[in-house]
Parts: sequence; structure tokens; C-alpha cells
Amino acid sequence: MKKVTDIADLAEKLRGGNRRALARAITLVESGRADHRAEALSLLEAVGTDRQALRIGMSGTPGVGKSTFIESFGLMLTGLGRRVAVLAVDPSSARSGGSILGDKTRMDHLARDPNAFIRPSPSQTQLGGVARRSREAVALCEAAGFDVVLIETVGVGQSETMVAQMADLFVLLLAPAGGDELQGVKRGIMEMADLILVNKADGNLREQALRTCADYAGALRLLRKRAQDPAGFPKALTVSAIETQGLDTAWADMQALADWRRETGVWDQTRADQAGFWFAEDVRQGVLQWLQEDEATRTRMQAAEARLRAGEISPAVAAAEVLAPLRGEKP
Amino acid sequence: MKKVTDIADLAEKLRGGNRRALARAITLVESGRADHRAEALSLLEAVGTDRQALRIGMSGTPGVGKSTFIESFGLMLTGLGRRVAVLAVDPSSARSGGSILGDKTRMDHLARDPNAFIRPSPSQTQLGGVARRSREAVALCEAAGFDVVLIETVGVGQSETMVAQMADLFVLLLAPAGGDELQGVKRGIMEMADLILVNKADGNLREQALRTCADYAGALRLLRKRAQDPAGFPKALTVSAIETQGLDTAWADMQALADWRRETGVWDQTRADQAGFWFAEDVRQGVLQWLQEDEATRTRMQAAEARLRAGEISPAVAAAEVLAPLRGEKP
Repeated sequence: MKKVTDIADLAEKLRGGNRRALARAITLVESGRADHRAEALSLLEAVGTDRQALRIGMSGTPGVGKSTFIESFGLMLTGLGRRVAVLAVDPSSARSGGSILGDKTRMDHLARDPNAFIRPSPSQTQLGGVARRSREAVALCEAAGFDVVLIETVGVGQSETMVAQMADLFVLLLAPAGGDELQGVKRGIMEMADLILVNKADGNLREQALRTCADYAGALRLLRKRAQDPAGFPKALTVSAIETQGLDTAWADMQALADWRRETGVWDQTRADQAGFWFAEDVRQGVLQWLQEDEATRTRMQAAEARLRAGEISPAVAAAEVLAPLRGEKP
Repeated sequence: MKKVTDIADLAEKLRGGNRRALARAITLVESGRADHRAEALSLLEAVGTDRQALRIGMSGTPGVGKSTFIESFGLMLTGLGRRVAVLAVDPSSARSGGSILGDKTRMDHLARDPNAFIRPSPSQTQLGGVARRSREAVALCEAAGFDVVLIETVGVGQSETMVAQMADLFVLLLAPAGGDELQGVKRGIMEMADLILVNKADGNLREQALRTCADYAGALRLLRKRAQDPAGFPKALTVSAIETQGLDTAWADMQALADWRRETGVWDQTRADQAGFWFAEDVRQGVLQWLQEDEATRTRMQAAEARLRAGEISPAVAAAEVLAPLRGEKP
């Protein structure tokens, strides 16, 4: 029963705040192996769900200064006595052969802070796979007693939607833009943002950052009408990650919004809805995985494909033959 | 045995070139009902795959004059004695509440031509569903003896990829652009195009169309290197759908490319690969559909979701409970 002991021991160390145990636990939930999966489920059950961090989703395209922002913001939070975890969700990392997100060398000071934990994006071919593992990593960070979990992503495809589904707040980081252009920010992302932070409000970009911020403040008023927003939200602010300006205001706003959501019940409702979303998504992914891995199904797939290639049957008929057992028919 | 007679009768009329039978057959493959699905599969088997049309995939954003082009091009083909079918694949039609693609009122003359058949996009919520039904509609048009099947789509998400997977040739229709901008055409679409047609090469847009065409010809040379292209392809041409200029050249190029592909075996290989693609896609869609429709699975889903909502289990554990029978475990 060595495995059971391992899981219990790992869960205990993790709940004690041990960062190496947390790293090992995340590696376990990121694994694609079936036996690891079973252990990961046991671990998730063992660590429980009694602790909640403030989960902040954050998106920003390359060049807006995301790493610098996270380092400055993270250090400010640890300076306030908070424990901060940074996780990256990058669906493109499978292609580029490695993620630059959550790169510890770009968050040098934060990486060495004993009250911080930084984890790069898992390498996965499928966004669904990356998202599930990241969401479970968030749960593990909460169980390890982190107060704030920053989940960063880039504006690629569906990744922001996925991150928003695992966050309590969603922050969009932008750079100052020229003139009246809105940097090609997708409408859907604007609608998700609780807080827009226009970074690089320093030196000769300060004026431009203020104008960009005003543009976005106007766009936010037009774009989003949600019952679950208190007065003043969503909001656009300027910050300077390099000069650590405006980070305290941004943090105060995040806390105010989180408090309001906790008090009104929006927080609990959102978390319950998110759990439902991930449940449905896990079932969907699980069925597709079964399709690829189940031995009998694969044998039927190969037989049907051979008949298809020989021109004996159409793709639709070939598919129906593979799926027959699911429908209670004889294969 | 009424159903069997119906299918056989429908198949016979369809193979006789009857357009009403073809329309009924397409309605059958577009239906989401399980009993219709079974009939659709019988019909697809009954009509066979011995006839092949030239399948031309065509994409172009609204405003490039797609309907006008298809009407002019289609009438030219029927004038040459060819029978032409036009099918639309529009994944956005579910949202907009109806497709403008393949709208018969916008292709007035072609719609009344006895040698033409026009079918608007099916209303479906899922692109996968639209694509499968469209591909089966293409097969029915071929069985009904049409010589050319035009499959038109708009540049929305994955729809062009889907259409390319059911076409022998892929044509991109564009409007003249200002200066050196390439109209935000996605790189992936450029790489799919065998022929780029710059429309509206008439009146005071003629010069601009020629410049745009030259830009795209240059871009095509840079972007695509495929072993299965003969010399000179992919190619960019100017056309004027309104003045019916350049359509004959475009048709000659399409035929030359199709002949080359038939002679070299690229045609058969591509069709075999496409059949494999759709087989895998059908299996994937079928499994996801089973998930939604299977009674026992739905019952398990509801039970697991109730426990999830009550906070008794995590999304991952809830999903594992639903999927247990697939893995040969007791539910």
C-alpha cells in the first residue's frame, strides 16, 4: 500500500505549505499516464477544498510587460505578508516547443521569494488538457495555503475563456496605444475583464498611457452590462510595473471587488458554475481520450478505416460501425 | 417495409438527376433525428460513390461579391452544358438566425436554371454538424450527376478548413485592396488557396484589382511550397463577375489543375485522405452526441452533478464517475 501512503504524505506536506510537495503534486496532475491520473484524483480528494485563495486570471499579449508586472505585483503582495502562486496557461507552448510564460528567469526576485511559487505552463498538445491540469494546479495551490493565485495567459484562441473559468477576477494587461486604436483587443476579452491595467505609464509613455486608459474606460462602459458588477466596475487604471506605480491601487480595487462578490453571494455562485463547466468539460475530454485509448475501440477504428480506404464503405458508415457498441448494438 | 421502398425510390430519382429528390435527400442528411440518421446512411449507401463531380471550395468575406460571382460563374458553366450545384457552409447561421449564403434571391438567374441546384447552409449550432451534413450533401449532388459542386463559405473560424477538406480545389475570392495591405487574409487560408480571384476588376477599380492581384501572386509564391502543385499554381487572377470577365480563364485554370491532379494520382490520394479525416471527425462527433443522448449516461451525469453542486466531490471525480462504465468499471 505504498502508493496510498505516498499520497497521504504528499497531501500532508502540501497542506503544510511545502513548495517542493506542491511542485511534485502539480507534476502528478499534469501527467498523462492513467496510473498517475488515478493518484492525482486521490490527491485532489485528500487535500480537500476548505481553503480558498483569490484567483486572479490575467491576460496580455507579448510586449505589454506581463512578466515585469507579475514580478512587481507579486513582490508587493509578499511584502504585505501574502503568499502568492503564479501559474501559466499557454496553449501555444506545445507548438513553440516551450513556454516563455511563467519563466522563472524573467521573474528572478519573485522566484527566490520563499512566499512565492512560480510554475510554467505544462506542455500539452490540447488546450482542453492544458486547461484541466491548470485548474487542478490552482486547487492544489489553494490547498497549500496560498492567498493569491495568479493565472496568466496570452491572447491565443480560447485560452482566455478557459482562464476566466478558473478565476474569481479577470485582469487584462495592456500597453499604451497610439491614437484611437484599441490594440485589436477582442470584444469577448473586453467583456470578460473586471480590471484593465494599462502598463508602462512611465517616462515618455505616461501621457499616452493615460489617453489609452481613458479610451478603454469608455469602451468598458459601452461593452459590459452585468448585474454582478458593483458601481465603478469594470474599471480601467494605469500602472507602471517598472516604477511600481499604481500597483497598490490595483490591488485595493481587486480586493474591493472580491469582497463585494463574497458578500453578495456572486463569488460562491460563480465558483459553483465554474465547477459545473469543468465537470462537463472533463467528461467531454474523458470520452475523447477513451476513444483514442480504448483497445477494443481502436481495433474497430482500424478495421473500419481499412474498409473505408478500400472504398467499401463511406466515412459515415465507417463511423457508425465504430460507434455501434456505444449505442448498445453488436459491433 | 415502406421505409426501404422510400429510400430506394428516392435514390433512384436522385440518380436520375431529379432536383426535388436531391433537395429531399439533403433535408434527410441534415436532420438531427436518430431515425432520419439511419435512413440517411441507407440512402448514402444506395446512391453509391461511382460518380465524381469537380468539387470547388470557395471562400470570401461579405462584400467581395461572392453571390454575383457564383451566379455569373454558374451561368457560364450551365451555358457550357455543365450541371452545377451550389452548397453553402455557414457556421455562423445558427447565431444570425439564417444564412445569407446560397440565398436564391441573390442568385436569381442561376436559381431558375434547370441545370443548376442551389442549397443554403443548414442551420446548426455546431460547426462539426454543419460540416458533416454539407459533406454528405456534396456526395448526394455527385450521385445526382452534377458536374461541378461549388461549396461556398465565409471566413469564419474553422469553416474554411472544413470546406477545404471536402473540395478538390480551393478558391479564394477577394476584392481589390488599397496599397500594400493584404486585407487581413489569414495565412492559413492563403496556404489553402489553389486560385485567388480578385473580383471587381472593372470600372475605376480595375487598376487597383490588378495591383492587388500582383501583391497576392507574390505572397502566394512566398507562402506555399507544395509538391502536389503543377508549375504556375497556386495562381492569382483578376475577374469581374458583373462584366463576366476572366471567368473563362479561371475555369480553364481550374480544369487544368484538376486534370493534372487526376493524372498524377494527387486527386485520388486527396479524396482518400479526406475520407479518413471525415471518418475520424464523424467518430468524434458521434461520441460527443452519444454523451448527450444516451439515457444511462445522462442519468449518471445528473447524479454526479448533484453531488458536485453539493460540494461532495470535485469536477474531476464527478467526471470520473460518469466515465467509469467506458473504462469497464462498475458505475
